[in-house]
Amino acid sequence: MKKLINSVDTMLAESLDGFAAAHADIVVLGPERKFVRRRSPGSAKVALISGGGSGHEPLHAGFVGTGMLDAACPGQIFTSPTPDQIVEAATAVGGKAGVLFIVKNYAGDCMNFEMAAEVFEGPAATVVTNDDVAVEKSTHSTGRRGVAGTLVVEKIVGAAAEKGMDLKSCAELGTEVNARTRSIGVALTSCTVPAAGTPTFTLGADEMEMGVGIHGEPGRRRVNLSSAEIIASEMVNAILTDLDHPASGDVLLFVNGFGGTPALELYLMYNSARRILEKRGLVVSRSLVGSYVTSLEMAGCSITVTLLDAKLTAFWDDHVHTAALRW
Amino acid sequence: MKKLINSVDTMLAESLDGFAAAHADIVVLGPERKFVRRRSPGSAKVALISGGGSGHEPLHAGFVGTGMLDAACPGQIFTSPTPDQIVEAATAVGGKAGVLFIVKNYAGDCMNFEMAAEVFEGPAATVVTNDDVAVEKSTHSTGRRGVAGTLVVEKIVGAAAEKGMDLKSCAELGTEVNARTRSIGVALTSCTVPAAGTPTFTLGADEMEMGVGIHGEPGRRRVNLSSAEIIASEMVNAILTDLDHPASGDVLLFVNGFGGTPALELYLMYNSARRILEKRGLVVSRSLVGSYVTSLEMAGCSITVTLLDAKLTAFWDDHVHTAALRW
Repeated sequence: MKKLINSVDTMLAESLDGFAAAHADIVVLGPERKFVRRRSPGSAKVALISGGGSGHEPLHAGFVGTGMLDAACPGQIFTSPTPDQIVEAATAVGGKAGVLFIVKNYAGDCMNFEMAAEVFEGPAATVVTNDDVAVEKSTHSTGRRGVAGTLVVEKIVGAAAEKGMDLKSCAELGTEVNARTRSIGVALTSCTVPAAGTPTFTLGADEMEMGVGIHGEPGRRRVNLSSAEIIASEMVNAILTDLDHPASGDVLLFVNGFGGTPALELYLMYNSARRILEKRGLVVSRSLVGSYVTSLEMAGCSITVTLLDAKLTAFWDDHVHTAALRW
Repeated sequence: MKKLINSVDTMLAESLDGFAAAHADIVVLGPERKFVRRRSPGSAKVALISGGGSGHEPLHAGFVGTGMLDAACPGQIFTSPTPDQIVEAATAVGGKAGVLFIVKNYAGDCMNFEMAAEVFEGPAATVVTNDDVAVEKSTHSTGRRGVAGTLVVEKIVGAAAEKGMDLKSCAELGTEVNARTRSIGVALTSCTVPAAGTPTFTLGADEMEMGVGIHGEPGRRRVNLSSAEIIASEMVNAILTDLDHPASGDVLLFVNGFGGTPALELYLMYNSARRILEKRGLVVSRSLVGSYVTSLEMAGCSITVTLLDAKLTAFWDDHVHTAALRW
């Protein structure tokens, strides 16, 4: 295992310390590193809290800041945060307007956020994301997995909360964005969880995993590596089929790197995916390309498509100032 | 070779098309993809132009925009842009205030930018960056290599040019920033240039290359992988020794990923490097952490330190709006 670390046990703590120090103008680390919260809390707004296993950086701590999350709870690598982390984060940033939990659909995350919501005494609601069309059931989830589309939910609901939207409406908006969003990923290499010390799975020199999960979970099938155009075509088709083949309209196209894929290849994949969407009659009116929802050092990428309307587009465009996303 | 591409020959063109489409609000691709320029040129200001081999993304095209570069010329992967690319970029964005070329110190880049400067008919000056302390001479350069510190030069001079600084002063400022900046890199894996198809170099399962260049050029020595703390300590020591052991003052600490290293590890390295600098009496008053000056999918990182003063800090803090750097 080749990693820039001191020890497996202290890796997450040291990385969080570095993150908090590098972005001290935006975030503060909570006691015992249980959560990362905004330095300047948004007074009377609904507080957005997300979290999950670490190893997907910048998700979620990198999205804490104006226009997006109020706090994020980092679990150990690929391990859910504990209920007490979530309760403490909610207590720290929640006010009268209440707390909205944004949870990726994995068994551990759902259970721990549910337990936290029961213990937390203020008003709270939950949005569960499940944008991954690859598989209906996985080793980590009942039902579809929540993956890169979670960023889109956090950005759009974050903007709405910043503008004063109430808790019930924020939850409905999050559910709506999730319902309009689909993702699928492909892996060219595995990743190595530090505590395990060996690759999560193995791929042959010419193989790729189509439909891979963000923890290296199996996808739809293991096949020979093909051209970017063929890969993008299969991914976009899977997404559009699941969206009932929309024939027109504006979409957000988000090409996300898994951590080990250079920008050069991500923009090339974006170029292929964009042309395929446009041939199908859709207009790519908003774009995001980069490594935002990663799987440690895994090579590969995911494609996410969100069906936009004027309201969602305006929220997407609204000011955001976090460590990883800014406009 | 596992890459998300269609063919080696069209890879760069397709990636540039994707980049220009994804950031159409900020950049425009020049004819025959010879350069990337700002969509909204800065009327009467000094025009900043950089460029170099591709494969280091987001450098340089990702830094085109308000407060930074006016144009960037992408060569083929790890290959200098041609003089005619540079001349056409200068002609497209240069005005009465003149053009400043920012060139990383590699033999091919220096030669081609020099030839372009001779052909270009407007007023022009050149800043050559050579911040890499690893080696005095390399397979690609006479004298020290220009690496991640180039970003710092582009950001600070970009802010000054935006404020109306004249050509001579911009060139002097660039030289000053370069003189106050040092970098060194470490590689955990090689990268594969697509046209070559095989890794540029090979490292054993426990080896790292200390002082590696951004094209995978050899560094100071090949040694066994050690802890992040020991690696950061050797890197920071090399930098501070070369800066004549400054005993106090503010510094910018920039931890840069080479393309295959996750954010989790970069922030951990930042945390180590920051503590070492502070123990030495320096104040890390500005920070940047991310994969900004890459070597395709190479795993590893570089550390860059710039000695700041009030003037440089103010230029660093000024508004910047590019594809890859925004505040």
